[in-house]
Amino acid sequence: MKCTGSIAIVGALLVGAASAQTFQRLGACPTLGCVFPPDQADFLAGQYFDIRLEVHAPINGSEATGKKPDEKFTFTIAKGKGKPKAVTDYFGIKEAKLETWSFSWFEDLFARDAKTPSVVNVTAKAYRRVALYEPGEYTATLTYNGKEKTVANWFVRDLAEERKAKNIILFIGDGMTTNMITAARLIGHKTINGKYQTKMAMDSFPILGHQMTHSLDTFITDSANSASALYTGHKSSVNALGVYGDSSKDPFDDPKVETIAEIFYRLTGGKVGIVSTAFLADATPAALTAHTRDRSQYGHVVDTFLNGITNYTWTEWAGPEVLFGGGAENFYNSKLGGKTYKDQDYFDLFAKKGYQLVTSKTQLAAAKTDKKTLGVFTTSNMAKWLDRNIYQDNLKLSLSPSGDKTSALDQPGLKEMTIKAIDILAKRSGDKGFFLMSEAASIDKMMHVLDYDRALGELLELDDTIKATIAHLKKINKFKETLILVTADHGHGFDVMGSVDTKYLAAQNVDRKKRDAVGTYQNSGLSQYVNTGNLTYTDSNFPSNWDPRYTLFDGLMADPDRRENWSVHKDGPRVPAVESVKGNKDYVVNPEDGEGGITLGGTLPVSNDQGVHSLTDVPVFAMGPCQEKFGGTYNSIDVFFGMAECFGLARGKKSAHGRFL
Amino acid sequence: MKCTGSIAIVGALLVGAASAQTFQRLGACPTLGCVFPPDQADFLAGQYFDIRLEVHAPINGSEATGKKPDEKFTFTIAKGKGKPKAVTDYFGIKEAKLETWSFSWFEDLFARDAKTPSVVNVTAKAYRRVALYEPGEYTATLTYNGKEKTVANWFVRDLAEERKAKNIILFIGDGMTTNMITAARLIGHKTINGKYQTKMAMDSFPILGHQMTHSLDTFITDSANSASALYTGHKSSVNALGVYGDSSKDPFDDPKVETIAEIFYRLTGGKVGIVSTAFLADATPAALTAHTRDRSQYGHVVDTFLNGITNYTWTEWAGPEVLFGGGAENFYNSKLGGKTYKDQDYFDLFAKKGYQLVTSKTQLAAAKTDKKTLGVFTTSNMAKWLDRNIYQDNLKLSLSPSGDKTSALDQPGLKEMTIKAIDILAKRSGDKGFFLMSEAASIDKMMHVLDYDRALGELLELDDTIKATIAHLKKINKFKETLILVTADHGHGFDVMGSVDTKYLAAQNVDRKKRDAVGTYQNSGLSQYVNTGNLTYTDSNFPSNWDPRYTLFDGLMADPDRRENWSVHKDGPRVPAVESVKGNKDYVVNPEDGEGGITLGGTLPVSNDQGVHSLTDVPVFAMGPCQEKFGGTYNSIDVFFGMAECFGLARGKKSAHGRFL
Repeated sequence: MKCTGSIAIVGALLVGAASAQTFQRLGACPTLGCVFPPDQADFLAGQYFDIRLEVHAPINGSEATGKKPDEKFTFTIAKGKGKPKAVTDYFGIKEAKLETWSFSWFEDLFARDAKTPSVVNVTAKAYRRVALYEPGEYTATLTYNGKEKTVANWFVRDLAEERKAKNIILFIGDGMTTNMITAARLIGHKTINGKYQTKMAMDSFPILGHQMTHSLDTFITDSANSASALYTGHKSSVNALGVYGDSSKDPFDDPKVETIAEIFYRLTGGKVGIVSTAFLADATPAALTAHTRDRSQYGHVVDTFLNGITNYTWTEWAGPEVLFGGGAENFYNSKLGGKTYKDQDYFDLFAKKGYQLVTSKTQLAAAKTDKKTLGVFTTSNMAKWLDRNIYQDNLKLSLSPSGDKTSALDQPGLKEMTIKAIDILAKRSGDKGFFLMSEAASIDKMMHVLDYDRALGELLELDDTIKATIAHLKKINKFKETLILVTADHGHGFDVMGSVDTKYLAAQNVDRKKRDAVGTYQNSGLSQYVNTGNLTYTDSNFPSNWDPRYTLFDGLMADPDRRENWSVHKDGPRVPAVESVKGNKDYVVNPEDGEGGITLGGTLPVSNDQGVHSLTDVPVFAMGPCQEKFGGTYNSIDVFFGMAECFGLARGKKSAHGRFL
Repeated sequence: MKCTGSIAIVGALLVGAASAQTFQRLGACPTLGCVFPPDQADFLAGQYFDIRLEVHAPINGSEATGKKPDEKFTFTIAKGKGKPKAVTDYFGIKEAKLETWSFSWFEDLFARDAKTPSVVNVTAKAYRRVALYEPGEYTATLTYNGKEKTVANWFVRDLAEERKAKNIILFIGDGMTTNMITAARLIGHKTINGKYQTKMAMDSFPILGHQMTHSLDTFITDSANSASALYTGHKSSVNALGVYGDSSKDPFDDPKVETIAEIFYRLTGGKVGIVSTAFLADATPAALTAHTRDRSQYGHVVDTFLNGITNYTWTEWAGPEVLFGGGAENFYNSKLGGKTYKDQDYFDLFAKKGYQLVTSKTQLAAAKTDKKTLGVFTTSNMAKWLDRNIYQDNLKLSLSPSGDKTSALDQPGLKEMTIKAIDILAKRSGDKGFFLMSEAASIDKMMHVLDYDRALGELLELDDTIKATIAHLKKINKFKETLILVTADHGHGFDVMGSVDTKYLAAQNVDRKKRDAVGTYQNSGLSQYVNTGNLTYTDSNFPSNWDPRYTLFDGLMADPDRRENWSVHKDGPRVPAVESVKGNKDYVVNPEDGEGGITLGGTLPVSNDQGVHSLTDVPVFAMGPCQEKFGGTYNSIDVFFGMAECFGLARGKKSAHGRFL
């Protein structure tokens, strides 16, 4: 390789041995001394958090030290140029007890194949529920093995203190990208000579931003980690909810950070609502109250909705005013085949705490707006818009929230849940205001299974919900005082490249000939989803035909083996790949999927039966007080700081239990 | 299919027989009477345009009329609720002569396979160079076959008249999407624990918008059509430059629309600059001055740079002050193997018109800033950033602009061309201001050939150019008076889903096992492009290592057959597919590409040797006077209207030749 004046060769940057590996000893800890929250962490003044310190002594592998882990490590904190103080003095807390454990990891795929794990002995301490109240820079220093140091620079943001928004409604289209919004517009809205005659509600938002979704320690995130970043201002690791992931085995001892829901309630007494089309213990709703490194601790999640964190001193919490979604199996206990925390019956426990319970669209419509309300409408995830509205025979696939294995035929959609949630929150929050998170969860779930039509149906339902929300807020005279945000937690690599003549595709016998059915550029034509067919909706803005002859030539970037016929799946959500032998985790084309289509080899490890998340920045649409804070390009955590500032939470005080400061 | 209260079955909308087909008789003409500009067209007040009327008489196929095409059709125009006037009276022009021709098309792929074209007889007229000066709604009505009518509603926008921007610099990343910007940031900028330590120049723009790139008559566009929409405010058909496509054979008789470059020069005498890393006759630079339905009329394109439109009465045009790029073969004539309009030597013709000619990076640096300048640095497209800076042996693949078949080893980059263009424009425009279009053309060209590394290199060079432009404008004290826009003309379905352990990939012998090299979510890790290696740049913000062990698991949505090893192509731009038998247009995996990688079947018709464009909305970044006009979500044509309004062009007057009004 030659070099010109514009390039110079310099010594490689010093980076930790495990840095930039796809396999890492412990995320955010490139050296053998770990500090959580780590270097570069941002904080809201007064935000509660835990501190976790670890010293690692690898006993084999490329980092082997041959030493025992240091038990005498020390930790100091300094504000600005101030003198470092011992953490116990700084926060006026007592010394934490020393913990020890060991864990193992694989340095790369060769080590994994050879079954040669690297084992690490650990000494650790945790300091619980502290907060930094003064804006500015802090230096947190772990000193271990005598002279070795891990320095974490912390930043407490200096934000305006005036409250600008009485209410915030945060819509999350799980996995939703700009590409998907463009595709949804194409099938849901009509153009005449290149001009849309109607548009998406999102298109009407005055402010547009892009947020970066990457994790603390990897560039692709999951929904737990990314939701935590949006809600707490702290990025974390894949599968972590409201904590930084440490290396211990206990999924509940990881260092916590306080969420927007917890801070908003603690400081203002404002009311919180949670709505999702997923099972309620799923990551995006869970991240508002749960604190665990393991998102699959569903029992814990549901318990935190009701009680908040119980196993450590933490913020007070009265539970949400509104909790609507699916996932009854995490509410009813093992007698009915459910799985709950301590096998308790959470329908009972919520009722005992004064919640009215609704389990159908009909009951939801009839529910009183002056009571705390728990609405659980199915076991598992809720039915998709396409199945509730077009292919309704598939509703038999949804199971009743009663746990009696009957079908859940009377399910509300995101719109009915969201509008009712607003009415309850508006009624019960009085002058304190409310925070509502409303999630269109199955954009992501349907993209995962490559069911593009259902995913776009979910996206159009989200947009229809946003449209109805704006109209409803105006009607109840709450529009001016409410900030509405619409964003996503991550993307999937989806786009549309043209059209497919499904009639021609089906008529060919050879895959290479079937590919001629794809029309690009001048042969892509116009959207037949709006220009043909005879479906109309009182809500409008959905396709008039879900099964046209010319469909979208679309897809994901990374897939299992599959067969694509680019036609709507009328018999329910798609199953693109199945195990070649039951239980062998070797996924091949599902012979019952994509009839008449083109067989395509996957790119993902064969243990994948579905698609995966992608890197792309995702859009943020803002309307209302503080909207200007959400323009341009920024980090996902800035969405948290923007919301906190609009809510006037910039100077949190330590609260005496039960009082709002 | 069952229906609930939220759905009603109604009669299908009345749509023309050819509507929403991927094969269309004529775009924007669903009925047998065609009006161009068509229904829903928007105009800038005083913008010159041609009118084309056609009456179709299909003699076979689903639309067969059994009639001869009407020769007595009439056309009227009415302003608002005013009385319709004959077009000749309305514009005070004389009657156009009747033209007749016939053309054929295929109604679908079955008809194409069966070789059964539909033949259409046509009568037509054209009215040249008219303009609408009053904002408001107009109704243009074609009456044919006695009582049949085609009504076109036209809208002349009512825009503010005050000029807010003295200069506009429009950067176009051809094919650039938000997904690609996210990937470029990942390989060019370093994060510590999830926080970027440096960012893209684009990330610093205060205003973000999304623009819709779809065509007039298809939902996927090409670069000719989309550039025309950005420059003229009129969407058109694939391959059309500055015209609406009619059905005649002549590629130069289609109805024209005036471009931002032509209007800006005609009305203000402001100066125009054109910079591209493509061959200069390529669509994106061409669309500023060319008017033809066929983008491949390269000779015509280069002639319009010099002379403007010559074959019809049109706007006056003095040629650009600056014209920098590749494509010498459209300047030197057939003696050297070139292909030019009337086989003229355009290097001579430009010189005769007072242009200084530069043909190398060295000459460019030395060029005077007080002269009109033509810079042509290669035959064909210019070399890519990766080949100019890292794998420089590949420069031998670039041919000299002299036409002597020697290599072009001394080529400037987009940054050098853009900064010099600004200096020349600033010097020569005086108080009149300038418009500069600077295109990073090979983001698109490298995405087409699935060369993701080179595409991202071009994107990083664009960003580096934007950074340098902002700094240079401040240095020469022109920053405050200059609106900077960064956008794209369309997308490619690209994203990043994780990382690839290229060492592990190469070590496996079976494709299904090679797929285990892909790391997603917690195994995606961190970017090794910035965390390893030892390349640094005086301009920084490029990878420190283009060939790390762990690369990006990325790709396009729609492909030919290919083999992916997710490693940088060191021997020059990638060639993913080749013909199975020379000349048979049946493309298969290039056996010399993607060594050790995974073989993947394509989805595109086998006649495709590369990827295609996608649907996604593309970002618009705005900074400077009028920046606020470019936030939110809008149509591509709104970029034209925003620029025209900022330039104070909202009330164009008819100009006497050579004078600015």
